[in-house]
Amino acid sequence: MSSDRVLNAAVLGATGTVGQRFIVLLSKNPMFRIHSLGASERSAGKPYSQATKWKMSELMPEEAKNAVVKNCDPANYAGCDVVFSGLDASVAGDIEKSFFEADFAVFSNAKNYRMVPNVPLCVPVVNTDHYALIAAQRAALGLKKGFIVTNSNCSTSGLVVPLKALQDRFGPLKRTIVTTLQAISGAGYPGVASLDILDNIVPLISGEEPKMEEEVLKILGGLSQDASVCTPLDNLRISATCNRVPVIDGHTECVNLEFANAPPSVEEVKRCLREYTCEAQDLGCFSAPKHIINVTEEEDRPQPRLDRNAGDGMSVTVGRIRECPVFHIRFTLLVHNTILGAAGASILNAEYAAKKGLL
Amino acid sequence: MSSDRVLNAAVLGATGTVGQRFIVLLSKNPMFRIHSLGASERSAGKPYSQATKWKMSELMPEEAKNAVVKNCDPANYAGCDVVFSGLDASVAGDIEKSFFEADFAVFSNAKNYRMVPNVPLCVPVVNTDHYALIAAQRAALGLKKGFIVTNSNCSTSGLVVPLKALQDRFGPLKRTIVTTLQAISGAGYPGVASLDILDNIVPLISGEEPKMEEEVLKILGGLSQDASVCTPLDNLRISATCNRVPVIDGHTECVNLEFANAPPSVEEVKRCLREYTCEAQDLGCFSAPKHIINVTEEEDRPQPRLDRNAGDGMSVTVGRIRECPVFHIRFTLLVHNTILGAAGASILNAEYAAKKGLL
Amino acid sequence: MSSDRVLNAAVLGATGTVGQRFIVLLSKNPMFRIHSLGASERSAGKPYSQATKWKMSELMPEEAKNAVVKNCDPANYAGCDVVFSGLDASVAGDIEKSFFEADFAVFSNAKNYRMVPNVPLCVPVVNTDHYALIAAQRAALGLKKGFIVTNSNCSTSGLVVPLKALQDRFGPLKRTIVTTLQAISGAGYPGVASLDILDNIVPLISGEEPKMEEEVLKILGGLSQDASVCTPLDNLRISATCNRVPVIDGHTECVNLEFANAPPSVEEVKRCLREYTCEAQDLGCFSAPKHIINVTEEEDRPQPRLDRNAGDGMSVTVGRIRECPVFHIRFTLLVHNTILGAAGASILNAEYAAKKGLL
Amino acid sequence: MSSDRVLNAAVLGATGTVGQRFIVLLSKNPMFRIHSLGASERSAGKPYSQATKWKMSELMPEEAKNAVVKNCDPANYAGCDVVFSGLDASVAGDIEKSFFEADFAVFSNAKNYRMVPNVPLCVPVVNTDHYALIAAQRAALGLKKGFIVTNSNCSTSGLVVPLKALQDRFGPLKRTIVTTLQAISGAGYPGVASLDILDNIVPLISGEEPKMEEEVLKILGGLSQDASVCTPLDNLRISATCNRVPVIDGHTECVNLEFANAPPSVEEVKRCLREYTCEAQDLGCFSAPKHIINVTEEEDRPQPRLDRNAGDGMSVTVGRIRECPVFHIRFTLLVHNTILGAAGASILNAEYAAKKGLL
Repeated sequence: MSSDRVLNAAVLGATGTVGQRFIVLLSKNPMFRIHSLGASERSAGKPYSQATKWKMSELMPEEAKNAVVKNCDPANYAGCDVVFSGLDASVAGDIEKSFFEADFAVFSNAKNYRMVPNVPLCVPVVNTDHYALIAAQRAALGLKKGFIVTNSNCSTSGLVVPLKALQDRFGPLKRTIVTTLQAISGAGYPGVASLDILDNIVPLISGEEPKMEEEVLKILGGLSQDASVCTPLDNLRISATCNRVPVIDGHTECVNLEFANAPPSVEEVKRCLREYTCEAQDLGCFSAPKHIINVTEEEDRPQPRLDRNAGDGMSVTVGRIRECPVFHIRFTLLVHNTILGAAGASILNAEYAAKKGLL
Repeated sequence: MSSDRVLNAAVLGATGTVGQRFIVLLSKNPMFRIHSLGASERSAGKPYSQATKWKMSELMPEEAKNAVVKNCDPANYAGCDVVFSGLDASVAGDIEKSFFEADFAVFSNAKNYRMVPNVPLCVPVVNTDHYALIAAQRAALGLKKGFIVTNSNCSTSGLVVPLKALQDRFGPLKRTIVTTLQAISGAGYPGVASLDILDNIVPLISGEEPKMEEEVLKILGGLSQDASVCTPLDNLRISATCNRVPVIDGHTECVNLEFANAPPSVEEVKRCLREYTCEAQDLGCFSAPKHIINVTEEEDRPQPRLDRNAGDGMSVTVGRIRECPVFHIRFTLLVHNTILGAAGASILNAEYAAKKGLL
Repeated sequence: MSSDRVLNAAVLGATGTVGQRFIVLLSKNPMFRIHSLGASERSAGKPYSQATKWKMSELMPEEAKNAVVKNCDPANYAGCDVVFSGLDASVAGDIEKSFFEADFAVFSNAKNYRMVPNVPLCVPVVNTDHYALIAAQRAALGLKKGFIVTNSNCSTSGLVVPLKALQDRFGPLKRTIVTTLQAISGAGYPGVASLDILDNIVPLISGEEPKMEEEVLKILGGLSQDASVCTPLDNLRISATCNRVPVIDGHTECVNLEFANAPPSVEEVKRCLREYTCEAQDLGCFSAPKHIINVTEEEDRPQPRLDRNAGDGMSVTVGRIRECPVFHIRFTLLVHNTILGAAGASILNAEYAAKKGLL
Repeated sequence: MSSDRVLNAAVLGATGTVGQRFIVLLSKNPMFRIHSLGASERSAGKPYSQATKWKMSELMPEEAKNAVVKNCDPANYAGCDVVFSGLDASVAGDIEKSFFEADFAVFSNAKNYRMVPNVPLCVPVVNTDHYALIAAQRAALGLKKGFIVTNSNCSTSGLVVPLKALQDRFGPLKRTIVTTLQAISGAGYPGVASLDILDNIVPLISGEEPKMEEEVLKILGGLSQDASVCTPLDNLRISATCNRVPVIDGHTECVNLEFANAPPSVEEVKRCLREYTCEAQDLGCFSAPKHIINVTEEEDRPQPRLDRNAGDGMSVTVGRIRECPVFHIRFTLLVHNTILGAAGASILNAEYAAKKGLL
């Protein structure tokens, strides 16, 4: 299929906050047309504008307003070239399976299939080489066109970008300790109660730390020789501590990092991050940012309110790069948790797949 | 001097936010009577209620309202038994010197004299043994009664409490990586601009990280054999990353810790922290909290809004104690930055001095 | 019954945010002892500390922690002298009825019985004269000791206090237009979603405006000659517009007011408000504040964070008293919505009843 | 001068928050090219990126980054077709005068000349008919091309839009009582201290209420028969109460309104507001929004975070239109305070002037 045709896109879980972000991004994306919106039976049959409680600061796109919401049965999605899933993990497992088994290309933000060895867990500016798993996945499931690609947890998405750049240039990483300050939009709606977060910090995001600690290893890892399964890193040790903070969008992460080999200087780290590029850029994907990593020199940056929209939310901003008295290097990064950290990653994953002729 | 007499207290820098906190705490403290309030020439001569822009959520104590503010010349402070300094560092050096050279007992929250080898840098629930330096300090300066004791930076105050408990029981600490989420009250008034912190994080607190990294070593260290100078730890390596967050009061700190020797289990750490006591408690000091460390079992605690007032702001709350995949132990602590982290520490330092007959 | 005996108090709806506030306040109140805590079947049988998700910034009182929660069947409340209800309106109707019919004295914060003509809707610093309805209420229901007294909606509580003072001194009020800025704690827990209120205002509080507009008329009104029913004001017209703002506690209300007769000057208004007293003070009720109305002269007050704790949350703070170019007088008031606006009012209502021999 | 040529624009006060907004808006506006950036002597000579502390959530436009900041001497602005002033009122008076006397067309956001009778105080979607004053202004000052047009205070801008629509259709307005909830960006940077606004409301914005109360009368008023001076309304009475709230951008205003004549129904009001158009739209001005007034039917709207960007910040959103028990109609409006309320209004004023051949 030519990558130049405008592709028909479905959004499952369209009424949730991730679904809303998919809709905003797709409405501005020339590669896709919003074709179908799927949600629970409770919403099915209603115009989207009535089925959803819109929470984006962008206005609801006109093409979504009057779309009639469907339930999530693949039989209702004929004509869709690509299916984006913003489903809640409690239902994503079964529904996504029904779609890829019905030979749809599924790009999922849910956690359910992320750690399956033949499923690409793909941050599209980091490890599109994992798409090589799709052939094995199709063979295993007996599919012709269908497959599933997942993107990572939102805080993982930010962390792996500089780690990948540094690993590629300076060799294996040995240890990293990361503490996050995560935005409330990551918890969906209604999500975090205001009484829990006004004038407050919540020092726990349930299940988030193990996700970060294992997803990073898969994303930065390789594939088996026959490209049948992923082979996670086994040499990197990670400790993640995750906090919820009163910020709308944008996860901040404070990273301390040790290299396995002789460490680079601060200037070498900065240059490496600035120069980092990826294949999705080379292919001219619409959502690939001009600068994958935005390195800030101002010592009080990155800041969520000022930097989260860098690269239209697809860049990672890294600042405060300095020597670490305990490990080698420390820095602070910012990632837009619902764009590169969620819907934007899925969409760029789909753009990449289109460019590679997988749709 | 008997410790039972009510002592006359002066507060320097009385119109600032630290000064306001001194006044609130002293007004409830049976060991002290507010005797004199000192501030800049601009405020001198005015009733306190007109000289200050009150920002505490407690109402202004009656005894402070009509006190006439003095300038900071020691000649005006006859009759004061103890001088608390909440002065800004830009003026604290000279003014505090003029007071202790005039034979006043000075308890300072400013950073100027903290790292002087014969000045106790004292978190009163941690290292009151450093008061042994006072004799040497007096000898060096030729003072009879005067001396200066400083308390630490607010974020340091929280960190050293569990570290001290653990070091005492399990032996030397090897490495710690800490990331803080610090409240706006730490920056004084007007301090942090609202445009910088609403829906935002500022990933830098200027000068804070080096302060934490060196103060901890002094506080957890010992004294020379003749008690003439402090001998900071040289075996512990620390990396601190400090962030400003939209919280009024209460610094949260995420700590990863490595022991030099065989590490304790999570349960042993909890027990150790719960059982930690200090000499100020034994002496019956009014401001010493019943529980120095409040260990929480709920996995989403400590939270600033819910836990900062534990022990009337003099306890440190430690939660999320768990194994660290990189070091040995990790946990999250909370300290009330303007109470144990500032004015409360100074006051307990003075109570301790009174009990020990140093006033 | 002597008003000097410590009374056994039950709290229904003890696990909710109003219930938690009742518990905090009762734990400091010498007139009451917490005897029983009631909640839904889901919580019944559990220790309170496990049944509730504590959200107060005060620590949970020791006497509540280990109390075993009961269901809300009056048969389990033998020995209670007074029953406080923080129940949700969806269940309060039936449960409260079962209690007062079982001859308990019920003090309710729920809206269900507020507008019943023989039920006192009582802000205890305003209209304790409405307690005269209790005799009629008992007669109508055939009760010996049981009755129900309700307190008003939180925003009503703030408004009626200065209106009552002004009406008493300057005669009937003609028109008032009030716009509120209400704290999130008024919505309970989880209540307002953080995505709805961070960097945002919600310009609607469902059902709040009609409640304010009708409750004020009942509270400021009188009784029929035989004290059998309440006779709401019919001469005052009210328009209320209610907004939710990102404040934890404390409702701010901007009031424009027209008198029926020749209006007082700004100075006369200030004096009137300052001099206002009530019978609960005269009787020496513990929770009656020293100053019912705290009049501020600083032109940027009242502010929720600075003034909500005036009179331990039982005073109303009124500031910005100035002429109104459209009506006669305008001012801004602040009321602690969960103390005078909820649990504190109920408790003072009960103290008053005790002093009057009604318990 | 043809309106089709791209015009050279200067921004005075370019480093402030209003100046930053001017730069963001001009960078997206096809009618203007940023030609010169002016600021204080302290900034003059520096590249803009170094002279300013950027606080917009949009990234700094490339064309501004390297522009060398000038001081505010008209001699340095040769070649500029239009001068936008975001200057602080403390210096705007003299500097703006020097520019219009040097025959520049000045569009000012400062308050200094707003109430001068022959200066248009123009909200460009409301009263562009006041441009007729320019001839008289030029005559009075002996200018050929120079003149000054001011836009209104930010909260005024929001209020006059629906009032104008209603006055045009239903005749004179009699009384209005308005209470505002204003965003912090209106106070510039550093502006409001975070300790004043986190978990808080400030019930005063100094000088704001009189500005609103007099500016509305001028904007909704007419001109003398010879178009030499403005003739403010004298039949409308206004009471404004202004509050600062913890919102970044977007002023909310709660309005109660009385008509002089028989009042329209709620439905008639909605229709009138929806149908309102203005001359700047008819002329095809780039910044004129498609819908001047965005009428919301959802009863919990407008909300700042969700609605402030309607019409790219140039629309006013009006919701909760309902009958008023005291006056006739009440509603809640939202205006983007730094776009239609400041820089956006100035720019649309300039676009209108260009279309009318005044530049």
